[in-house]
Amino acid sequence: MCRWLTYSGSPILLEELLYKTEHSLIDQSLHARLGVETTNGDGFGVGWYGANTGTPAVFRSVEPAWNDRNLREVAGYVESPLFLAHIRASTGTPVQQTNCHPFRYGRWLWVHNGMVRDFPRLKRDLALAVDESLYTSIEGSTDSELLFYLALTLGLEDDPPGAVERMIGLVEKSGRLHGTEHPLQMTIATSNGRSVWAFRYSSERRSRSLYFSTDMRTVREMYPERPRLQEVSDETRIIVSEPLVELAGAWNEVPESSYGVVQEGEDELRPLRPR
Amino acid sequence: MCRWLTYSGSPILLEELLYKTEHSLIDQSLHARLGVETTNGDGFGVGWYGANTGTPAVFRSVEPAWNDRNLREVAGYVESPLFLAHIRASTGTPVQQTNCHPFRYGRWLWVHNGMVRDFPRLKRDLALAVDESLYTSIEGSTDSELLFYLALTLGLEDDPPGAVERMIGLVEKSGRLHGTEHPLQMTIATSNGRSVWAFRYSSERRSRSLYFSTDMRTVREMYPERPRLQEVSDETRIIVSEPLVELAGAWNEVPESSYGVVQEGEDELRPLRPR
Amino acid sequence: MCRWLTYSGSPILLEELLYKTEHSLIDQSLHARLGVETTNGDGFGVGWYGANTGTPAVFRSVEPAWNDRNLREVAGYVESPLFLAHIRASTGTPVQQTNCHPFRYGRWLWVHNGMVRDFPRLKRDLALAVDESLYTSIEGSTDSELLFYLALTLGLEDDPPGAVERMIGLVEKSGRLHGTEHPLQMTIATSNGRSVWAFRYSSERRSRSLYFSTDMRTVREMYPERPRLQEVSDETRIIVSEPLVELAGAWNEVPESSYGVVQEGEDELRPLRPR
Amino acid sequence: MCRWLTYSGSPILLEELLYKTEHSLIDQSLHARLGVETTNGDGFGVGWYGANTGTPAVFRSVEPAWNDRNLREVAGYVESPLFLAHIRASTGTPVQQTNCHPFRYGRWLWVHNGMVRDFPRLKRDLALAVDESLYTSIEGSTDSELLFYLALTLGLEDDPPGAVERMIGLVEKSGRLHGTEHPLQMTIATSNGRSVWAFRYSSERRSRSLYFSTDMRTVREMYPERPRLQEVSDETRIIVSEPLVELAGAWNEVPESSYGVVQEGEDELRPLRPR
Repeated sequence: MCRWLTYSGSPILLEELLYKTEHSLIDQSLHARLGVETTNGDGFGVGWYGANTGTPAVFRSVEPAWNDRNLREVAGYVESPLFLAHIRASTGTPVQQTNCHPFRYGRWLWVHNGMVRDFPRLKRDLALAVDESLYTSIEGSTDSELLFYLALTLGLEDDPPGAVERMIGLVEKSGRLHGTEHPLQMTIATSNGRSVWAFRYSSERRSRSLYFSTDMRTVREMYPERPRLQEVSDETRIIVSEPLVELAGAWNEVPESSYGVVQEGEDELRPLRPR
Repeated sequence: MCRWLTYSGSPILLEELLYKTEHSLIDQSLHARLGVETTNGDGFGVGWYGANTGTPAVFRSVEPAWNDRNLREVAGYVESPLFLAHIRASTGTPVQQTNCHPFRYGRWLWVHNGMVRDFPRLKRDLALAVDESLYTSIEGSTDSELLFYLALTLGLEDDPPGAVERMIGLVEKSGRLHGTEHPLQMTIATSNGRSVWAFRYSSERRSRSLYFSTDMRTVREMYPERPRLQEVSDETRIIVSEPLVELAGAWNEVPESSYGVVQEGEDELRPLRPR
Repeated sequence: MCRWLTYSGSPILLEELLYKTEHSLIDQSLHARLGVETTNGDGFGVGWYGANTGTPAVFRSVEPAWNDRNLREVAGYVESPLFLAHIRASTGTPVQQTNCHPFRYGRWLWVHNGMVRDFPRLKRDLALAVDESLYTSIEGSTDSELLFYLALTLGLEDDPPGAVERMIGLVEKSGRLHGTEHPLQMTIATSNGRSVWAFRYSSERRSRSLYFSTDMRTVREMYPERPRLQEVSDETRIIVSEPLVELAGAWNEVPESSYGVVQEGEDELRPLRPR
Repeated sequence: MCRWLTYSGSPILLEELLYKTEHSLIDQSLHARLGVETTNGDGFGVGWYGANTGTPAVFRSVEPAWNDRNLREVAGYVESPLFLAHIRASTGTPVQQTNCHPFRYGRWLWVHNGMVRDFPRLKRDLALAVDESLYTSIEGSTDSELLFYLALTLGLEDDPPGAVERMIGLVEKSGRLHGTEHPLQMTIATSNGRSVWAFRYSSERRSRSLYFSTDMRTVREMYPERPRLQEVSDETRIIVSEPLVELAGAWNEVPESSYGVVQEGEDELRPLRPR
């Protein structure tokens, strides 16, 4: 079981959230509390957008995150207004850089926590459903990357919620075809550098946890000792698969079968309707 | 451009051929003479059969072969009557363990030097032609591994030359379909632990080099300073994509569009007829 | 806090103890029960002697042990009558191959669990105490390797218990000099390919755990489902820093400040007298 | 034989010099022309100062530079007014991150091309000459890092040329003591984030090559196709151990036994006087 987080708002150093909180993502890679596996040592990745929101940069590594010195250097240097980070606990596919999240296609990033059940049996069907022009960009062998390319095939760039709903429908259908009872378990975040979409879904309606920070006043209370965070704007948002710190009222759980959008203007929280 | 070798005959330590010859495979990884790229630093692998020819063991690494200390330890310990080794120079696919040769399926090993041209364009077609039950065993993203699974789909385990001829035919056809003039360039070796098959072919009839050692008297002359090699049997054979040492008369070139079989009884050298 | 084990007796495949027991060493690398850190993901190593007890081979890796495919291949191939294995949880020094155990010098292997406290302060003194001819063989930066070279300097090859007692004395003295109250915490195993010595000591007399298997009848009961182990000789011994399986009466604890010798003839268990 | 470069002047993306020139440093890692070894595949590093010249960030990797995807991402993102880069060809010490250049101490960076001859014999003497408070910061096992700590011990932070001259004197003396005829071969660059010092020296007066770019008009001519470089200031300087591109008049060789300083105000080129 993996862990991920997204940050969007006033530019901050990556290390503020990756290393310097009480129960940071890096700390979670050694000791997760809500997960199935207690260690997430099978790779790490962070993707970030620059000030001028072009193609994001991606840093991925198969070393356990807590040992990666280059990650620490980069996290202490890079300041970003929007980034996604992920720590991996493999559910079977090889530990290699091309299987680390975030996956990137053009301006889009994608992180996933969960799995396609019976993936070896469903894999070929799902791969065939990927658009021919996208197929060749698949580099790794995970279910997570394949879900990304299915969503891209089904319109992610124009209508993210619709594309993910269609992707879910396709996986459910493939599961039924192969006799897999509950084929999909997922929390997913994706971004184009301007907005962030976060999805929570599972075939069996017992999806893995997903939280978002209500408003930055809470976040500021959460990190009283971090002066940089005192200055972030009220629009700043954090979405996480497991709370970074324990603070009463700091986190709202995303409801089962729902998605949220962090965007310019009003944020949204809506039901997810697999098609 | 990669390099590979196969050895079959009296059991020897892997290091005898990997490290201890004048122009060994490891030396070639730093300074190849006949290749296009002068450095083969994109990974390494060796697969060997034990005395009782069951499933072979495989050691693969993304470190340049000349730096891998574990390989040196293992090569100084493992004695084998039949092994295949490979050094990789990537033609574009990622440098990761699952892209290193030899590839293994059951008792079979496979090494390849060359490429499928326009692989990004042909890849999906070729992947779809792999048998459904085999598809899920594909772990990496190379053309080489895909050729292996195509050959397995087309009967490698029962009739290796026939399966490779059909595999070549399939790639040629896919090339024609996508407007790729000369889709295939290859020297390939494969083994089931008892025999070794080595193939030389290219669409344009200018295939990469491939040599075999005529008889062990020559090999003994080649390595006068290696007492262990003085004792190997007359049936011992070495096949290489580039000669290991320069010795007049030591190596025979495999002719264009041909294959050789090293086996119990008489060895064979025959024309290859793509189907 | 690290974990290690030694095996000596009838030759077995490494994987029998590394992977195939209920609470194997590899399993411990993910979930140790008695240790301070719950994850030992900072490297791994195994050193083994061949049938004809010459220089041992060593396989060490910075990957978490549970992900290392080459280790799995080698462990499924190598059969040895005497081997030492180690999983590492760094206490501060870098995660790199030269910091992984076992350390090797000539025919000798060395594994350590524990630490030199205030190592940054004591390191230079200890390094200077290493014999000039040995100094240059130090490759890594750990306290563990330095303890090995101190023991070698102080006569390990001729009198292992005496050398370790003198090494302990030297570290205690250096600790006093620098105002470090309890400078040494250690369980150590060392071997020359014929015997195995295992030491348990700490300045504060609260040493980390150390166990040995009394006799092979117990071990056979421990692994009823492992036919290979049913055939090992009565002289076979296992020493571990944490029990591999929970079986009443299977393990004896090595007493505080003691050492054991597994050797031809009668084994020994004696008090340790730092000099 | 290694390669290095330093850049100081108008902020540019690291990739401008690491990847995007005709004969870039990354290209040199595969095919050096003036070096002894033709491949520099034993690690890579780059250290850069931010706009507000505090502690530099360092990215070092044991992968061959040409394969490191994270390096490519970081190089395409980081813009710096002063950076040092290095590709390594090991002269014997292990390939590990702590042996990769640049070495860092506080605000200082250090890169070295060359070697201490008979290093195994001289190493202990040199290590003992390092100041006790600095000794514990040594992380790797190379001669290069030891030269850095000797220079720091001998006053690098206050008087770089004087400290390097004293360091050279110390190595020469240690060489005489141990009967090593020509103990030192070096080109070295070091920086504190404001100035860059570059040294060329060898005991035998046949030092490895070292070049600097005279003025930025030349550099602009060198890279006509790189619009970003057309805008850099006239004070921008590049120092390299091997020219990046072949352009008549573009490079000046640093004379034997000399050093140069790139600094605010007039640059300097002076003789080096070992003490």
